Amino acid sequence: MAGPEKRPIVTVDTVLFTLRDGALATLLQPRAKPPHAGRLALVGGYVRPDQDSGTLAAATRILAEKTGLTGLFLEQLMSFAGPDRDPRGWSLSVAHYALVPEAALARAAPDIAVLTVGEVPPLPFDHDAILAAALARLRGKSAWSTLPAFLLPETFTLPMLKSVYETVMGEPLNDSAFRRKINELRIIEELPDARSPATAERRRPAQLYRLSQRALVAFDRVI
Amino acid sequence: MAGPEKRPIVTVDTVLFTLRDGALATLLQPRAKPPHAGRLALVGGYVRPDQDSGTLAAATRILAEKTGLTGLFLEQLMSFAGPDRDPRGWSLSVAHYALVPEAALARAAPDIAVLTVGEVPPLPFDHDAILAAALARLRGKSAWSTLPAFLLPETFTLPMLKSVYETVMGEPLNDSAFRRKINELRIIEELPDARSPATAERRRPAQLYRLSQRALVAFDRVI
Repeated sequence: MAGPEKRPIVTVDTVLFTLRDGALATLLQPRAKPPHAGRLALVGGYVRPDQDSGTLAAATRILAEKTGLTGLFLEQLMSFAGPDRDPRGWSLSVAHYALVPEAALARAAPDIAVLTVGEVPPLPFDHDAILAAALARLRGKSAWSTLPAFLLPETFTLPMLKSVYETVMGEPLNDSAFRRKINELRIIEELPDARSPATAERRRPAQLYRLSQRALVAFDRVI
Repeated sequence: MAGPEKRPIVTVDTVLFTLRDGALATLLQPRAKPPHAGRLALVGGYVRPDQDSGTLAAATRILAEKTGLTGLFLEQLMSFAGPDRDPRGWSLSVAHYALVPEAALARAAPDIAVLTVGEVPPLPFDHDAILAAALARLRGKSAWSTLPAFLLPETFTLPMLKSVYETVMGEPLNDSAFRRKINELRIIEELPDARSPATAERRRPAQLYRLSQRALVAFDRVI
């Protein structure tokens, strides 16, 4: 078998998505140590066989340690590996992506930068490729699932739900078709007697909803 | 940084799909060495940083070495990792899946077993979970792409194309809807003057097709 000295470096990296002023954004953190110390990058670190039960556990631990963020939707994306992606040697990173509700941002470490996906500067290592793959996965899965709803607070209005799908997919949606589909799929439920506060644009308070039990596993075409 | 002695074992494993008598089947190989020597398992091995430019390259090299199979559609599935999946220690396997046209089977190593996906015995390590994930990925992607066509020979008839989609997805398809969609998407092209031999069931030879250039990248809903 391959002795330990011949084994690749194994890390995890996580692409963090959130909403910022109605735009899809990503969370980056300046690197604390070389290589690329001080540069904004994905949040990542070494897999620790003495501590981690798997790579999802490693990503969860590192996110908590470095950003303070916990309880997120977090999923494996894919692995990136090779001799040239990290100056420390042949390395493999199991990339993940996570969805951060806007409310959770307040708990994030103060050095976290929130940048809309269109204004991200060139990133070190192969983090540009990882971010691009995560964005493609998020958009590919979003049309088919309740994934974008994990960016919303626990209770939301129908316009908020439609808006988050539009933001993630990057295109406007037909209002009545969207509402009809959401009703058909029974992925949200009304909060009885709960209404959003009236706003300047909308004098009548709107019905509040939350995701139904079914939504947590729903994988039907939504949009 | 984590010293080499703390690094996980890194392997690749590949789920090989093929067609056998019109059923979706998988290729397994008896393990040459412990652990689980002699048991049928997925084809895999160690990533070798001194030889491999990445994990896809490692999977390609190991498939060629152990099975003789080359030139397959081969894609990363996802990684499986943890302390308990391999008795040799904390390990990470980057799982892949590949599609083997029936004609290529003749080139495969003689100890390869071809079993329909319904008759696979319990596999060692976490190979049952890897096989299940690969099957879900294959079916999920097939409806949206020309993926099943990579199980066909280079030239095929329309009924052969429809049949391979039905076999992979495990459900019958509407004939005229399928033909209309295939025509719309322009993913196949007629081979001028090429006809399949007449058979007992079909006296009139059928038009032969091949995948068009567009099919190699097409990712539209097919079925």
